[in-house]
Amino acid sequence: MIEIPEGTHPALAAVARAAATAFHDARSGHDRAALAEKIGMGADGTPTTRLDQLVDTAVAETAAAHRVNLISEEIGVVDNGSAVTLVVDPVDGTANAVAGVPLAAFAGVVAIDGTAVESLTTWLDTGRSWHAKAGERGPWRTSGRRELDGAAVNLLRPHPGNEAAWLRISRRAGRVRILSSSCIEAALVAQGSTDAFADAGSDTHRIMDIAAAAVLVPAAGGVVIDAFGRTVEIDPDLSRRWSGVVAATPELAEEIAATIVG
Amino acid sequence: MIEIPEGTHPALAAVARAAATAFHDARSGHDRAALAEKIGMGADGTPTTRLDQLVDTAVAETAAAHRVNLISEEIGVVDNGSAVTLVVDPVDGTANAVAGVPLAAFAGVVAIDGTAVESLTTWLDTGRSWHAKAGERGPWRTSGRRELDGAAVNLLRPHPGNEAAWLRISRRAGRVRILSSSCIEAALVAQGSTDAFADAGSDTHRIMDIAAAAVLVPAAGGVVIDAFGRTVEIDPDLSRRWSGVVAATPELAEEIAATIVG
Repeated sequence: MIEIPEGTHPALAAVARAAATAFHDARSGHDRAALAEKIGMGADGTPTTRLDQLVDTAVAETAAAHRVNLISEEIGVVDNGSAVTLVVDPVDGTANAVAGVPLAAFAGVVAIDGTAVESLTTWLDTGRSWHAKAGERGPWRTSGRRELDGAAVNLLRPHPGNEAAWLRISRRAGRVRILSSSCIEAALVAQGSTDAFADAGSDTHRIMDIAAAAVLVPAAGGVVIDAFGRTVEIDPDLSRRWSGVVAATPELAEEIAATIVG
Repeated sequence: MIEIPEGTHPALAAVARAAATAFHDARSGHDRAALAEKIGMGADGTPTTRLDQLVDTAVAETAAAHRVNLISEEIGVVDNGSAVTLVVDPVDGTANAVAGVPLAAFAGVVAIDGTAVESLTTWLDTGRSWHAKAGERGPWRTSGRRELDGAAVNLLRPHPGNEAAWLRISRRAGRVRILSSSCIEAALVAQGSTDAFADAGSDTHRIMDIAAAAVLVPAAGGVVIDAFGRTVEIDPDLSRRWSGVVAATPELAEEIAATIVG
């Protein structure tokens, strides 16, 4: 049903398969209203939809069966007594998924003693996957663009507090897209389909929104930084937020960050 | 390779198949830089990429073989002496397609004596199609939403001349997306996955960007209007532009248009 590249950590592969199966079962067994229903509050402090809960539960059960720890959006931190922790966004782009916009992803990272060593991003609607290992050159190349003027930039939607910063980026970009799936948008940077993806200073990103990007994009020649210079790091405190800047080159990332800060 | 629903006009079906075949051949035979190369000026006054030209040529040959007239983005008006005219966007979302963002569509309309009677929109990356006939209820239903506040709205990117109007919509919308494929975005309105899609007053839309929507979306309970009240009509003058508003209900369309006008 989904591509799992050879060499993927068995626990990460199993969790991705479980997420994809639960995702498709949820969509075939429930209508949009039922999938979108907010049935609780996640560990990250945002509401949990039924879709999130169904997929997160499958992920947690699979992580436990593989005796690895888990940090997940809804369930939070699960210590299964391992040196290996999976940091997972079971459904990135939940709003897309529940509405039937075909842009939603599973994204997961293998962390050993707090350091991310491997990532897997799977576009749930098609099964297409992007896998990478930290410190190894992967099969994809970013566009290599260094300048913001004329760049193709994906953004989160503007929020009341960051409209000015959002427009500063938009005015200089040659193309602007908002796909509402941070993990797919980061994969598009990795494969050179867009030059950058950024949260233009709204501090919306949680670690699971950018953890896979922070492995995948450097393996393709790009970088992931925070617009305000904070370290992007795996932390069990899910209240932490970043304004992730995912870019084809360090130069482009720094220019976008400087433009956001203003 | 692509879904062609039963009952599709044979010339429209043939042209859609030709477009999809040419699209896939172009992408397997050329790299991104070659596909994106601007090799001329289209009949609509915008540059023609190699991808556009390859697909448009296949569309024109097929229309001629079926002895129907054609109005197409790049080639313009071709009179093959028929009462039937196909109004076609061979590749909607060219920028996505040439970059490898998997959001591009074929969209075509059958017009008889200037009146659109049938439409077909095909998502080229997956083969998924939306077909409708004017005046007949189709299989999809819009969301039925009547109010802008909290609505999910897809937009074209903001341009220097319409930033204020763009932000007036964005501030009231519950979700904002920019997918850069007007024809797919209109299909998402038809199937209830987003509440509306609009050009927020930049007058970017040409007739082929909204012609298929103007058949498909009413067949699902929605409407297509122009933000400034101009009639959306098939016209061989490809210099005409609109600010299309595609919405789940007439009430939502009127509220979005009034908000754009300000």
